[in-house]
Amino acid sequence: MTIQKSGTKLGVIGAGGVGSATAYAAAIRGSADEIVIYDIADKLAEAEALDIAHGTMFAHEAEVTGGGDIELLRDCDLIIITAGARQKPGQPRLELVDANVKIFQSMLPKVMEVAPQAILMIVTNPCDVMAVVAQKITGLPTERCFASGTVLDSSRLRWLIAQKAEVSIRSVHANVVGEHGDSEFPVWSAANIGMVPLDEWKANGELVFTEEVKAQIAEDAMRAAYKVIEGKGATNYAIGISGARIAEAILRDEHAVLNVSTQLRGKYGVEGEAAVSLPSVVSRQGVLRVLDVPMTEAEIDKLRASAKAIDDVIQGVDLS
Amino acid sequence: MTIQKSGTKLGVIGAGGVGSATAYAAAIRGSADEIVIYDIADKLAEAEALDIAHGTMFAHEAEVTGGGDIELLRDCDLIIITAGARQKPGQPRLELVDANVKIFQSMLPKVMEVAPQAILMIVTNPCDVMAVVAQKITGLPTERCFASGTVLDSSRLRWLIAQKAEVSIRSVHANVVGEHGDSEFPVWSAANIGMVPLDEWKANGELVFTEEVKAQIAEDAMRAAYKVIEGKGATNYAIGISGARIAEAILRDEHAVLNVSTQLRGKYGVEGEAAVSLPSVVSRQGVLRVLDVPMTEAEIDKLRASAKAIDDVIQGVDLS
Amino acid sequence: MTIQKSGTKLGVIGAGGVGSATAYAAAIRGSADEIVIYDIADKLAEAEALDIAHGTMFAHEAEVTGGGDIELLRDCDLIIITAGARQKPGQPRLELVDANVKIFQSMLPKVMEVAPQAILMIVTNPCDVMAVVAQKITGLPTERCFASGTVLDSSRLRWLIAQKAEVSIRSVHANVVGEHGDSEFPVWSAANIGMVPLDEWKANGELVFTEEVKAQIAEDAMRAAYKVIEGKGATNYAIGISGARIAEAILRDEHAVLNVSTQLRGKYGVEGEAAVSLPSVVSRQGVLRVLDVPMTEAEIDKLRASAKAIDDVIQGVDLS
Amino acid sequence: MTIQKSGTKLGVIGAGGVGSATAYAAAIRGSADEIVIYDIADKLAEAEALDIAHGTMFAHEAEVTGGGDIELLRDCDLIIITAGARQKPGQPRLELVDANVKIFQSMLPKVMEVAPQAILMIVTNPCDVMAVVAQKITGLPTERCFASGTVLDSSRLRWLIAQKAEVSIRSVHANVVGEHGDSEFPVWSAANIGMVPLDEWKANGELVFTEEVKAQIAEDAMRAAYKVIEGKGATNYAIGISGARIAEAILRDEHAVLNVSTQLRGKYGVEGEAAVSLPSVVSRQGVLRVLDVPMTEAEIDKLRASAKAIDDVIQGVDLS
Repeated sequence: MTIQKSGTKLGVIGAGGVGSATAYAAAIRGSADEIVIYDIADKLAEAEALDIAHGTMFAHEAEVTGGGDIELLRDCDLIIITAGARQKPGQPRLELVDANVKIFQSMLPKVMEVAPQAILMIVTNPCDVMAVVAQKITGLPTERCFASGTVLDSSRLRWLIAQKAEVSIRSVHANVVGEHGDSEFPVWSAANIGMVPLDEWKANGELVFTEEVKAQIAEDAMRAAYKVIEGKGATNYAIGISGARIAEAILRDEHAVLNVSTQLRGKYGVEGEAAVSLPSVVSRQGVLRVLDVPMTEAEIDKLRASAKAIDDVIQGVDLS
Repeated sequence: MTIQKSGTKLGVIGAGGVGSATAYAAAIRGSADEIVIYDIADKLAEAEALDIAHGTMFAHEAEVTGGGDIELLRDCDLIIITAGARQKPGQPRLELVDANVKIFQSMLPKVMEVAPQAILMIVTNPCDVMAVVAQKITGLPTERCFASGTVLDSSRLRWLIAQKAEVSIRSVHANVVGEHGDSEFPVWSAANIGMVPLDEWKANGELVFTEEVKAQIAEDAMRAAYKVIEGKGATNYAIGISGARIAEAILRDEHAVLNVSTQLRGKYGVEGEAAVSLPSVVSRQGVLRVLDVPMTEAEIDKLRASAKAIDDVIQGVDLS
Repeated sequence: MTIQKSGTKLGVIGAGGVGSATAYAAAIRGSADEIVIYDIADKLAEAEALDIAHGTMFAHEAEVTGGGDIELLRDCDLIIITAGARQKPGQPRLELVDANVKIFQSMLPKVMEVAPQAILMIVTNPCDVMAVVAQKITGLPTERCFASGTVLDSSRLRWLIAQKAEVSIRSVHANVVGEHGDSEFPVWSAANIGMVPLDEWKANGELVFTEEVKAQIAEDAMRAAYKVIEGKGATNYAIGISGARIAEAILRDEHAVLNVSTQLRGKYGVEGEAAVSLPSVVSRQGVLRVLDVPMTEAEIDKLRASAKAIDDVIQGVDLS
Repeated sequence: MTIQKSGTKLGVIGAGGVGSATAYAAAIRGSADEIVIYDIADKLAEAEALDIAHGTMFAHEAEVTGGGDIELLRDCDLIIITAGARQKPGQPRLELVDANVKIFQSMLPKVMEVAPQAILMIVTNPCDVMAVVAQKITGLPTERCFASGTVLDSSRLRWLIAQKAEVSIRSVHANVVGEHGDSEFPVWSAANIGMVPLDEWKANGELVFTEEVKAQIAEDAMRAAYKVIEGKGATNYAIGISGARIAEAILRDEHAVLNVSTQLRGKYGVEGEAAVSLPSVVSRQGVLRVLDVPMTEAEIDKLRASAKAIDDVIQGVDLS
């Protein structure tokens, strides 16, 4: 018999590296009052939850449980979906999508049955595509069924800028938008440190963020995941803490601006069904609004190209 | 006998409402490992410290002590000065300055003797003037002897904007610069929410931050202190938490951008000795640099006027 | 227009030193999602709330408001009552009680109307008496209408022990029980550091906590408030953080053991209506249970005497 | 070029599951100002550090770096050692020890060269043995070279008790002592909830912690690791957070009581060289003192047996 907690309930689907790191970060940070890890690999989900729960003495007092029973997810306020197949070397991307679509088709109806009020946040890659897939399967409005998008990519970008400028990362304001993937890009035109536009930031009288430096940083931010994967086979810690952070914005009704991925539906002239990341206000209702960020024509073109790349994949998905 | 703590040591001079609220906020937040409150009103300083220490069970474990012995301040890493006379109704401002100058002249040489390595942050009003006074008395470089400036005013501004835009205060980027006082002003040209310039922020299709709204907010931010003083006779809580926040940026060597007040010495064409607030990088060395914030001509004119108002007071100070 | 927050709502009645310090500590700690300060001195309540709200930039993002409209308290989950008359020099205690009873009689019915589901925690002194008074006026079960009791006194006791033993206060386990006042006493028989009974704790081969030392510490803990009052005229910071801590145990449904004060109703042979402090499990339902703490006969006698002192005051209260 | 941080520096040796989880937990909690992960598998160490650093935006602002250059560890205040061989199925335990001894012999002299002032905390299993091995190799006093011991086991025990009693884990006081392994045991005689001895804790009028229940909980706590290993192949999250917690007690000079493992040298009649866990005061100097915990004769016998089991392994170690 465990204590019946009132308060916020966070579900994490998938007990792999990403899912367990998300639950771990959420438990340490106190992101929710109750955290459950669900996976059809029930022993794994139970073990990950237990390993986190064993450290409760030194964390916030979230109740952490895990297993393979869908009932665990009952009445979750937010469900973060990390489950899915991993890309095998040489495997075409669309094959990966197809595998994950099948998983979602089998899983999501059961999830909606036990947690019809839940907000869904998709981390499973390609997350922009899978958010649309999840939206179609569940019929949820896009503001309640979105992807973690470029929240993490923006954190990576800011970290790189902060290192270069030798300032606190919290004083760096810069966003990566578009696809969470190869076609993403930083909106340099609005990036700043304190109130100083990045383009005017100097060190020892010299401009620091030249076109070359910016191109390198954009490349580094976008390829950061590859570097981590090369070294450790996967990424999980940074996406884990990003997921926990977004969860807090939702569960605490913060109205925080975060680069999550939702369907644009005509905004910026982006037609089609693609979900892409843009600065958005996130609250207890999900994504309250996508901001009208001023971008240069070149940036808007990149955004459209990014959205098109995602939409093309979506159009290839067979949901029948 | 108390535990000898290694780690960071924060001194607060002045056990009045501001000083004690600063120590209280710092103890709850864990801003420093050791906190001392010094005041010539020794019983008061001891009582405030004791009242904070009694709650240690539920706070971070800072050692909190207080009293009238200057030795308490020995080897402080940072000293926040809140001591000083309060303006009496009808009293000319320069009289207030003269009273506080006398207090600083008597106190600071003793402080420097026991804590020669300390950074000094002046909260005593008029803080921009008193920072220069303290600098002259101690001979410290301006980057190690500055004022809390418009850090609090900027927090008030952002709170007002956040309320109006219905977003998290952390997603609002806006700064009040200049004097911590009547000639301060928001740098509207750089203010934004997420990446959206304030001037383009809409609600229900309508621009929200019209010239009228901005003027009202600027007025409200500047007069916020008066409203609080009218209701409770003084302000202390918001300045207390602001002081604790700046302390963290210093003691944790954060390189955070904060609107503290240092001498400009020619920057923006501001001559004279005035210390004024501008976004600045704050670290364990004090104020590492004042940022080159792009401002409109009108804004720069306001800054110069603000600096001149401060400088005029400084020139009237007799330090002999 | 302010953001509509979901989540936990904490009301604080009374905008004096204690009430405002409670709200300040709760805002810094993130004890609740929404905090309101209510006082018939509406300008004061508004000013204190505003002064706290102005620091939101550097705190958790609680919505903090204040004023004299009872509607502010609507749907609070927990209301901490700090309002009341202060004892004047030479004034008999019963006169103080009578003054506060009148305040409660006028105020509580209105409070219950707007917040019928709220838990009430009484801080107004004498808190053990006033908790019973509040219970009688509201008809709430004692577990939903209790006093902060000796939570603070226990924190003071542990701080004194920790200082003496040169250990972290969190490793000290000791409780003050009985009246929050002169008849309170530490349960020495169960006090320990780590797993070492206080009576066996040594330094340099010598027992540290002799009868003399314990008597001194008990006296110091009990008289700590007097020492603070002597120096600053009142206590507010330690009781503020204690109130915020208890609030968290309730709002986060922690099932934490805290020395709050509830009616014993026959337990330990304590008859009568007195509320007295004993280690109790505190949760979202209020006080779930009062623990059966083993005490020596002498300790139980003290508890009965303490309860009798409180009950005598209660019997003198005229609630007609 | 990165920011030069003053403040506390934590080194983690070993970039496997345990080492990286320790660094992750420490970064999220803000346990240190600088965190480095060192591993001869340099790409792995770099990738884990990078994956943690990428989330800095949402964590405390520790500088996190990693790699295979021993210079990374220079001037660490504390080094947590998690590196070592893992037990293969069927492999005798002494073989594992021999493998890890070789690693320590090769690594520690280089570590001591760059970080001669560091405190060493051994997590590598069997940690009680390896702490003695590390002490012998480095010549450090045992108080500066100890093992994480049963800090985690005690957390597991308290979690199980808290679940059973339906109280907050922070209100449960109970310790596992002895070997971090099969011969460990809870000191039931001193275990309590609030001030109530576990043996007297009741629910619905019935004693809850009968001999059968206690035996089951002791077994569950001891075998908890096996259950996690069975499900996920290893344990890392709970030990990670435990390591971060102990690090804080050291780096913040907390004088906290924690069940770390140091050499007893005759205490409790335990001769030989074994390091075993007992409640100990942990500070910036390392392990300040091992507490004289009252135990029953049976408990002391178990402690001796536990120590003997460890000592036997140590005597079989060839350090030549």
